[in-house]
Amino acid sequence: MTSRSPRKLQPVPLPRARITGGFWGQRMEANRTATIPAVYEHLKKTGRIDAFKLRWRPGMPDKPHVFWDSDVAKWVEAAAYSLIAHPEPGLRRRVDHVAKLIADAQQPDGYLNTHFTVVEPERRWTNLRDAHELYCAGHIIEAAVAHHLATQKPMLLDAARRYADYIGCVFGRGKGELRGYPGHEEVELALVKLYRATGEERYLRLSEYFVNERGCRPHYFDREAKERGEAPESYRAGTYDYCQAHLPVREQKTAEGHAVRAMYLYCAMADLAAETGDRTLLAACKRLWRNVSERRMYVTGGVGSSSHGERFTCDYDLPNEAAYAETCAAIGLVFWAHRMLQLTANGRYADVMERALYNGVLSGVSLDGKRFFYTNPLALHPQSARFGQPHVRAQRADWFGCACCPPNIARLIASLPQYVWSEGRDAVHVHLFAEGTAEAQVGDQTVAISQATDYPWDGKIRIGVHPERAAKFTLAVRVPAWCRNAQFTINGEAVPLEPLVASGYARIKRLWHPNDALALDLPMPVEQVHAHPKVRSCAGRVALQRGPVLYCLEEADNGCDLSDVVLPADAPLRATHEPDLLGGVAIVSGRARRRRRGRGGPLYSREGLGTAAVPVRAVPYYAWANRRPGEMLVWIREG
Amino acid sequence: MTSRSPRKLQPVPLPRARITGGFWGQRMEANRTATIPAVYEHLKKTGRIDAFKLRWRPGMPDKPHVFWDSDVAKWVEAAAYSLIAHPEPGLRRRVDHVAKLIADAQQPDGYLNTHFTVVEPERRWTNLRDAHELYCAGHIIEAAVAHHLATQKPMLLDAARRYADYIGCVFGRGKGELRGYPGHEEVELALVKLYRATGEERYLRLSEYFVNERGCRPHYFDREAKERGEAPESYRAGTYDYCQAHLPVREQKTAEGHAVRAMYLYCAMADLAAETGDRTLLAACKRLWRNVSERRMYVTGGVGSSSHGERFTCDYDLPNEAAYAETCAAIGLVFWAHRMLQLTANGRYADVMERALYNGVLSGVSLDGKRFFYTNPLALHPQSARFGQPHVRAQRADWFGCACCPPNIARLIASLPQYVWSEGRDAVHVHLFAEGTAEAQVGDQTVAISQATDYPWDGKIRIGVHPERAAKFTLAVRVPAWCRNAQFTINGEAVPLEPLVASGYARIKRLWHPNDALALDLPMPVEQVHAHPKVRSCAGRVALQRGPVLYCLEEADNGCDLSDVVLPADAPLRATHEPDLLGGVAIVSGRARRRRRGRGGPLYSREGLGTAAVPVRAVPYYAWANRRPGEMLVWIREG
Repeated sequence: MTSRSPRKLQPVPLPRARITGGFWGQRMEANRTATIPAVYEHLKKTGRIDAFKLRWRPGMPDKPHVFWDSDVAKWVEAAAYSLIAHPEPGLRRRVDHVAKLIADAQQPDGYLNTHFTVVEPERRWTNLRDAHELYCAGHIIEAAVAHHLATQKPMLLDAARRYADYIGCVFGRGKGELRGYPGHEEVELALVKLYRATGEERYLRLSEYFVNERGCRPHYFDREAKERGEAPESYRAGTYDYCQAHLPVREQKTAEGHAVRAMYLYCAMADLAAETGDRTLLAACKRLWRNVSERRMYVTGGVGSSSHGERFTCDYDLPNEAAYAETCAAIGLVFWAHRMLQLTANGRYADVMERALYNGVLSGVSLDGKRFFYTNPLALHPQSARFGQPHVRAQRADWFGCACCPPNIARLIASLPQYVWSEGRDAVHVHLFAEGTAEAQVGDQTVAISQATDYPWDGKIRIGVHPERAAKFTLAVRVPAWCRNAQFTINGEAVPLEPLVASGYARIKRLWHPNDALALDLPMPVEQVHAHPKVRSCAGRVALQRGPVLYCLEEADNGCDLSDVVLPADAPLRATHEPDLLGGVAIVSGRARRRRRGRGGPLYSREGLGTAAVPVRAVPYYAWANRRPGEMLVWIREG
Repeated sequence: MTSRSPRKLQPVPLPRARITGGFWGQRMEANRTATIPAVYEHLKKTGRIDAFKLRWRPGMPDKPHVFWDSDVAKWVEAAAYSLIAHPEPGLRRRVDHVAKLIADAQQPDGYLNTHFTVVEPERRWTNLRDAHELYCAGHIIEAAVAHHLATQKPMLLDAARRYADYIGCVFGRGKGELRGYPGHEEVELALVKLYRATGEERYLRLSEYFVNERGCRPHYFDREAKERGEAPESYRAGTYDYCQAHLPVREQKTAEGHAVRAMYLYCAMADLAAETGDRTLLAACKRLWRNVSERRMYVTGGVGSSSHGERFTCDYDLPNEAAYAETCAAIGLVFWAHRMLQLTANGRYADVMERALYNGVLSGVSLDGKRFFYTNPLALHPQSARFGQPHVRAQRADWFGCACCPPNIARLIASLPQYVWSEGRDAVHVHLFAEGTAEAQVGDQTVAISQATDYPWDGKIRIGVHPERAAKFTLAVRVPAWCRNAQFTINGEAVPLEPLVASGYARIKRLWHPNDALALDLPMPVEQVHAHPKVRSCAGRVALQRGPVLYCLEEADNGCDLSDVVLPADAPLRATHEPDLLGGVAIVSGRARRRRRGRGGPLYSREGLGTAAVPVRAVPYYAWANRRPGEMLVWIREG
């Protein structure tokens, strides 16, 4: 169970990282007490869990769908992470029960898939392009690794190994093997996890095979379609860029196609670059990263702007009302950013990770943890939304037929502590600011790191450093790109920060003693953010941001017709903490102008209308749609 | 062949109205020499014309689709109108040949529909909701009336009468009759045309039955679905407002559902109000008109903003890039406006008719007459459009699988002279300005009216009035709502206009002599048009209009990133005639500002960029996409 990773950093793993309160403590508590139970109830009610009993026969209800297994597996993964910090016996029994159901559904040859065992057994591995078979396999592997981490029980991990071994016999470049790879990536990153959990290099090689084979000619999906008797041109998604199979991965320069698939592929590419030291893969990852983060990402960290194919489109094409920005895609961006961060120790990845976490991910779940957005638009008009894309909703739903997002957000939030700190040979990194503690391995000793903070509402963070004994190492503390004039003290003494900061981290190399105390102060004025001139949906508009938190206007605070609100460029904007609003948030308020409206009036006229000053009040974007339904707007007109 | 219509005005019919040159002369010439032949070729090539031979059998190609008949019928109608002004023998033979094919396809009982005769004979009248059967019937009737008007041959008109008589036996409130009505309106207005052409009141009554029965409970479409063994709730469009069958028509207060269907229904309601004097129908029409023209119409005269159902959505919901604004819907708005105008003699209807004609209708066809837009967005980004609604295109296409628009625009343009003038008991109306002549019936004499003008490029119109002998009557000349400070002379003498103008017309009642000459001067400065504050897609933006012509920016003239162009509110804007550009147009030019762009740069930043002055150049909206593909923008940021 060792890893020979050459990556610079490794996350402090969940058993040694803990969030104990504050903003994320509150979110993790809602996740544990509301989201995880709610997702389980829906999985149970819709037949997804019982599908593993393999009792479905033609004519019966609840026919297992091709991606049901993944929903259950993601729940197991979420619940397992939760058990690490909160070993609740009831949840543990439930997780073990579901894990056993999954393991018991494994076929004698190692195959493990409910749909293709009971519904279409004759079609096993005949449609990798569309049928989500290897995608489900990947989620079962991830669940198994998490279950083993949380419980040390080998049952599900053994099943996952047998399944991976079987997959390894089916696919590859050997004689009699299928030269295929999944239409929906996921198994690739899962196999790297399995390799790390077991030390078995064959899983790493299998992942490498899938990634390297992708997009090669002659095209496997062409061949496979013909074998099914279908014309390759009849592919519903049109072209293979939909599933990032239009080119070999190292030749891909722009993020294309279905955004969740893209994120999972890029995660696997980063994982392989980390494990194998493959510089060509790392270079491809960095190119794709620049394309996403500099041209194809919402200010929320959402990605995949089009509802037609849940996909990336073209540079700077980021419509606000029509935004798709699937919750799972923002989650995938966090996964990818986290991996790039471990590879490079560069704060640019942590900045995007934080942007997505506080905004485009968190908007996916209600404050009470029980309702979910699949899409995350940056503007909404509820009456109009009724006539638009069926996925765009004015309110979160408690479940979806295609239910990828709820268990995905559950597993991310349950595992959040591992995103906060990293350890390395001679450094501890603090990436995110959250009330909690980590026990980092630095060289041969354990360094306990504590954080106390009211972040993101306040920029003051107290970091306690507790090596077992005095030791020289680097404490690298992130200085977010959004921050100007950060201040630092060590044991009460101000430290000039400028010379210490490189690649987004203040890197403090010194002899650290037990109980050393570091105080970080990140000033958090309200900022007006501008988008690149090529982003036509944001031309003449600004977004309000304070610290990592993006704001929006809601009808509940500002009345309707939000697009008519104009914020003067020099408008003084004030942040106020409101402990009783939306679970406790800082709101932003100021004065804007809007046109004087009468009732009715002409639809078009030569005369403009005069404007009047009005108060405006913005709330954090992630907390929108937790009150009565109404308009919402992120990008406010400036003038 | 008489009409007892109580409507105030009647169009001067095609045989007595002629456009001889100028703007519309050029468009009619392209329609005659390019559009009508091109549409015929496509109808022929795709099997739509030969479908009337009824030779299709299962397994053969070119299976007649449920709405194919309407495409052919609209072409016959267009070609017939064209023959009135240009009796080309070749076209006449072709029209007669197609008319005979249609007539010969009539079944012994009078039924006439290719699809339900050869493809699904057992399903006749089983799915009025979706199957376009009565819609096709309506178009065949309209074609027959036009064919008879142009050729005086009774062949097709007789077939249409037999079909209408048969339909009258099938539908109604009598014993054994079906209480149904069409899911796609059209037959209602066609039956009024047939009544007017034949004087047979039963066609008027049948139209009245269809209109009055619509939306009544118990709902016919529920009953019909159940009889097909389908759940009414499985209706693809969701709710009956899609086809304006959610309420009885007199209770409908807002324009709902599929925009073309709505327009055709409202036309029939106006026709029936005109023929029967039914004030409740007129009141419903006026309410719906206010809703459309004051809340649900693009500045182009386009209607039906959503591609999901090609439909109306909610008040002030007029997205620009995502605009559907089907060409046929703008054409339908012209049909309806024209009818409301005859009913009321109120210029507000002529204003909308003119707005749609010069903008949202005409954009539907290329300058060469051979290519067509189905949808008419008000902004376009060609790279982005590739990923959006399949209907949104950066360039016109030469045909569509669902080919309603090309023959619809052909029949409207071929019949345009009848939209220019109206006659009444004691008045002649000039609604539109176009080079041409009409012979209007006023009381018991014929008054020839001539127009000479370079409208819409120039606001000077010379109107010649030529009664057979001196006579007292009213000449009512429209003073468009877009015009301020119109000037008038009669026989060279200035006439104070103000006291003469009522409801959008200068009504000049006097003793007119042969060769009286009237000169109208409509000043045409470039105007910046604002939308109502509730139109969120246009907030902070202006559209440029000069006379009736709406302008847009194209990439060909202004480079890319058009949304970054900011037009100062006081920017001097100049119109220049460019005879060699886009078939000869006035362009609008001035100076605007845009941000200084480097390559790349951050996607989001706190710093705004400085702006620089740039020239801008706008071209008429209708003429967009006649050069190389590129961005287009109607609503320009103001600042």
